[in-house]
Amino acid sequence: MQLGLIGLGKMGGNMAERLRRAGHEVVGYDHDADKRDVDSLPALVEALAAPRVVWVMVPAGDPTRATVEELAGLLSPGDVIVEGGNSKYTDDQVHDVLCREKGIGYIDAGVSGGVWGLENGYALMVGGTKDDVAKVQPIFDALRPPAPVDESGQELPGAGFVHAGPVGAGHFSKMVHNGIEYAMMQAYGEGYELLAAVDLIEDVPGVVASWTQGTVIRSWLLDLLVRALQEDPGLEKISGYAEDSGEGRWTVEQAIENAVPMPTIAASLFARFVSRQEDSPTMKAVAALRKQFGGHAVQVVRAREAERPA
Amino acid sequence: MQLGLIGLGKMGGNMAERLRRAGHEVVGYDHDADKRDVDSLPALVEALAAPRVVWVMVPAGDPTRATVEELAGLLSPGDVIVEGGNSKYTDDQVHDVLCREKGIGYIDAGVSGGVWGLENGYALMVGGTKDDVAKVQPIFDALRPPAPVDESGQELPGAGFVHAGPVGAGHFSKMVHNGIEYAMMQAYGEGYELLAAVDLIEDVPGVVASWTQGTVIRSWLLDLLVRALQEDPGLEKISGYAEDSGEGRWTVEQAIENAVPMPTIAASLFARFVSRQEDSPTMKAVAALRKQFGGHAVQVVRAREAERPA
Amino acid sequence: MQLGLIGLGKMGGNMAERLRRAGHEVVGYDHDADKRDVDSLPALVEALAAPRVVWVMVPAGDPTRATVEELAGLLSPGDVIVEGGNSKYTDDQVHDVLCREKGIGYIDAGVSGGVWGLENGYALMVGGTKDDVAKVQPIFDALRPPAPVDESGQELPGAGFVHAGPVGAGHFSKMVHNGIEYAMMQAYGEGYELLAAVDLIEDVPGVVASWTQGTVIRSWLLDLLVRALQEDPGLEKISGYAEDSGEGRWTVEQAIENAVPMPTIAASLFARFVSRQEDSPTMKAVAALRKQFGGHAVQVVRAREAERPA
Amino acid sequence: MQLGLIGLGKMGGNMAERLRRAGHEVVGYDHDADKRDVDSLPALVEALAAPRVVWVMVPAGDPTRATVEELAGLLSPGDVIVEGGNSKYTDDQVHDVLCREKGIGYIDAGVSGGVWGLENGYALMVGGTKDDVAKVQPIFDALRPPAPVDESGQELPGAGFVHAGPVGAGHFSKMVHNGIEYAMMQAYGEGYELLAAVDLIEDVPGVVASWTQGTVIRSWLLDLLVRALQEDPGLEKISGYAEDSGEGRWTVEQAIENAVPMPTIAASLFARFVSRQEDSPTMKAVAALRKQFGGHAVQVVRAREAERPA
Repeated sequence: MQLGLIGLGKMGGNMAERLRRAGHEVVGYDHDADKRDVDSLPALVEALAAPRVVWVMVPAGDPTRATVEELAGLLSPGDVIVEGGNSKYTDDQVHDVLCREKGIGYIDAGVSGGVWGLENGYALMVGGTKDDVAKVQPIFDALRPPAPVDESGQELPGAGFVHAGPVGAGHFSKMVHNGIEYAMMQAYGEGYELLAAVDLIEDVPGVVASWTQGTVIRSWLLDLLVRALQEDPGLEKISGYAEDSGEGRWTVEQAIENAVPMPTIAASLFARFVSRQEDSPTMKAVAALRKQFGGHAVQVVRAREAERPA
Repeated sequence: MQLGLIGLGKMGGNMAERLRRAGHEVVGYDHDADKRDVDSLPALVEALAAPRVVWVMVPAGDPTRATVEELAGLLSPGDVIVEGGNSKYTDDQVHDVLCREKGIGYIDAGVSGGVWGLENGYALMVGGTKDDVAKVQPIFDALRPPAPVDESGQELPGAGFVHAGPVGAGHFSKMVHNGIEYAMMQAYGEGYELLAAVDLIEDVPGVVASWTQGTVIRSWLLDLLVRALQEDPGLEKISGYAEDSGEGRWTVEQAIENAVPMPTIAASLFARFVSRQEDSPTMKAVAALRKQFGGHAVQVVRAREAERPA
Repeated sequence: MQLGLIGLGKMGGNMAERLRRAGHEVVGYDHDADKRDVDSLPALVEALAAPRVVWVMVPAGDPTRATVEELAGLLSPGDVIVEGGNSKYTDDQVHDVLCREKGIGYIDAGVSGGVWGLENGYALMVGGTKDDVAKVQPIFDALRPPAPVDESGQELPGAGFVHAGPVGAGHFSKMVHNGIEYAMMQAYGEGYELLAAVDLIEDVPGVVASWTQGTVIRSWLLDLLVRALQEDPGLEKISGYAEDSGEGRWTVEQAIENAVPMPTIAASLFARFVSRQEDSPTMKAVAALRKQFGGHAVQVVRAREAERPA
Repeated sequence: MQLGLIGLGKMGGNMAERLRRAGHEVVGYDHDADKRDVDSLPALVEALAAPRVVWVMVPAGDPTRATVEELAGLLSPGDVIVEGGNSKYTDDQVHDVLCREKGIGYIDAGVSGGVWGLENGYALMVGGTKDDVAKVQPIFDALRPPAPVDESGQELPGAGFVHAGPVGAGHFSKMVHNGIEYAMMQAYGEGYELLAAVDLIEDVPGVVASWTQGTVIRSWLLDLLVRALQEDPGLEKISGYAEDSGEGRWTVEQAIENAVPMPTIAASLFARFVSRQEDSPTMKAVAALRKQFGGHAVQVVRAREAERPA
């Protein structure tokens, strides 16, 4: 089928390529004139036969908002917009109202897969109405990883794609995915640090590598850690500075809003905050308190207490 | 080669089977007369040609200690004991001294794989001297998962087996593995709970299943969670009560001893402690404090402060 | 001076009493006809001579919003509204815009002190312009605890009152105060639980009481815990169920927004969430995973992995 | 009464002074010849009339062990040793066995109070038999803070002294005290950091100072923080580097051993560990994982998965 695709960067460009390999026609637009098939959003809309599906793959926040708003002014009732970036799910709900007013469908799609998605497929978590999702299903099917089969050759549905609920459910699911990712990375990191802290373990990269087959903690992230340690056994070439993206923060915020205890994901988020501080104001305060213990600075403060009204 | 194997339970029995399939001769001993090949440890030792290798696969703590002590009295210089249970690594160091005095080699082996090990192989993390490990290597090679190959057909070593260091290093590595396991399980649990807490997500098992292909957080544990949710979509048949084994506790203790920050693994351990409490003394104290806010109970206490010496 | 006071509940009623004892004239309004001096907000405004100061002491959220809006329609330029409830600081910023448009001043005041405030005074953290704060200063001075004096008889300013910054700064400061309160309560609770968990400590209430003089951790909250343990030495009459108010959640949300690591305050918030759950979905997931370990359920899932595209 | 006191440093010296002011006779020994009254432990024992009480106030660990062992060889049945240093409670239990064999009593005393103890008294948490504690009670009464009185002039017992249980209970109580201290310091630190992180708060030291009267979180530690901020409002002269002593670690270890959840105290301990790291191996691993996301390094690893045995 035909698809309009806005944003042909690393992700969007590879997605276009995967879709074309699967026989779909992609009309792409990008700020970069060298990458694009059409020169403007109006031209993109014109190039597509109704009912149209347009996939937005631009940075979250203002760029996405602006693109959705412009598209909503150009598209026709029955068309569908798919927001595949990293929007906060509440933004999707705003976009949806905007589109519904004009009869345009709106789907939010959380997309995972990075640079390997081109070959392996992209995991997709989508939110929207059944009708809208049905209109885009051929595209989803081409992007997602192939359905695995069990020993008897039967397809096992469900891996790599879910219609999670109404608009917002896609990005909410992806957000939670990223929160879990933070805690898993932190957990491997903590284990690595303990191994590296003791003389007893003479082959730290070897221990981590040994975990990749036959253990409870084997995972794709662990495979990545093995690779990183193969390249740099003591991680000497990298500093312990870790950015965080919106999704991790939003996950903990949502946990708080819904009274969900979330100790490990929150701890991993805080560890990233700490990693970016030159010095910690909290620990300055702790150190200052410890310093106060040693002097007689507090005598006056005690005197004040004695004057408190009964 | 020949191997003496003590403990033919779920783990030991399957290991014996895997070894026999690989062409090794296993002489097994167990408390259960129906399972064993010989009727006593002396008989087991007699049945093996020197230099002997005897693998101990009995419960950690006293049973393992007693078995190692008895074996040390029966074996000859040049023989090797492999402790494959869940011993604390410091126990191994005690066992090692005991064995070395008699010229007997000692290896500690952390074994992972559970019921799937028979078919898929067991991940092995071992500690000991090079010479001792070399003597047992054919056994390790039969137990471990087959070495994977890359696209060009070359074997990729390291997955599923490591000689981590001297005696203790094997169980230390396995201990850290289990600590990481705790935090990963907790992370998935927290993500699951948030999904389940919001009306927005209409297909929670579907979202979890979607993560198993093409995402950053795909893992064997995630596959297990999908399976659990297929069997019981709301986890209504299971209560949120989680035991912990020694390894999780030891991991955090070692972190403390080595000044390694370990927030996510510790948090997941504490979450298990909480899960087993009928009521929380900590939260009773918090509730009691909140209740005190509401009354004037504290007037007398304040009066006492006013009497403090300046 | 004259003060209009809206809301004559436990807090507002005591504040009115303390102000009157200090010689101020308080005109009070409340939904409860038995408590109030005037029968409506218009009557309250009419009873005050311009420039007026009206203190709002009603529940946070809609009641406060509605009251501020109605007042803004009744007051005159130069008058000042003080919001002394538990508003979120961002609500204050909205109220402020509303008031400024009409030339009315707005101050947010975080108030601490509970039932002891009548006798001991209320700690006040206020936000607003210098001019507005100056207009209300006599009221603040009557409400706050008396300034303590040091050994030489000099007043030590600063305890019990602060002009923290522009509108919002008062409730922000009070919010952080409450976040710290959560972690302190949790810390005492954890210590209490450990004491109570071991047979070695034969007099748990006695140990806690001993800490109230001469130690590093003596505090007003500790005095409260002593009192609670005197009344109920094993805390047997209270269940470990702890509510949380908005301030604790907002504190952690603000930490996240500002990339401030906040492990202890977040942990204490999560502990309250857990305390209110009949069963924990997170721990159900953990327990379900542990159960999966024991079976061969995962064989098919493994088969699926083998089919992944290279 | 008579007391032998070993160790006349900052703590021991002040304790001797406080005891002498209260009319007790103190015979002191110290490595420093300028401070001591007698030149050796045998001389100290000889200078005391039986039944003797000897208070040991030397560094924990080997020095304390050596001192107790030497004393046990010099003292007579019916004498009592008080260990007032920072011993681990399990060390006390070893010392106790050693002393009981010779008919000598043993008491462990956790002492809090630092440099203010001379004037204000020392909080004491002691463990031992009733008889032994009774023998030393006059000394405890002189060292502890004066019993506060309530409004009617009645003494309120319990503040500043407790006989917590048998040998070990004193240092265990002091250990828990220190654990709580860690979390309280961290909580204030986190609150301080959030205040300092936002432009909204224009007077951070003022906010902290305002909390010292009339609030829920007022405490001696808070008074210290006010003082620290008065001296250095932005804490610019101090680095966020915080040591930890044995007690904090032991508290968390004991929590783990007794299955007591201890999230805030553990978090505060971990924060100190982090504060002393030049770079964090955990966060290096996290950063390395994030870096791996961006490349195609993992292709080979994926290929290996496809080769896994079904």
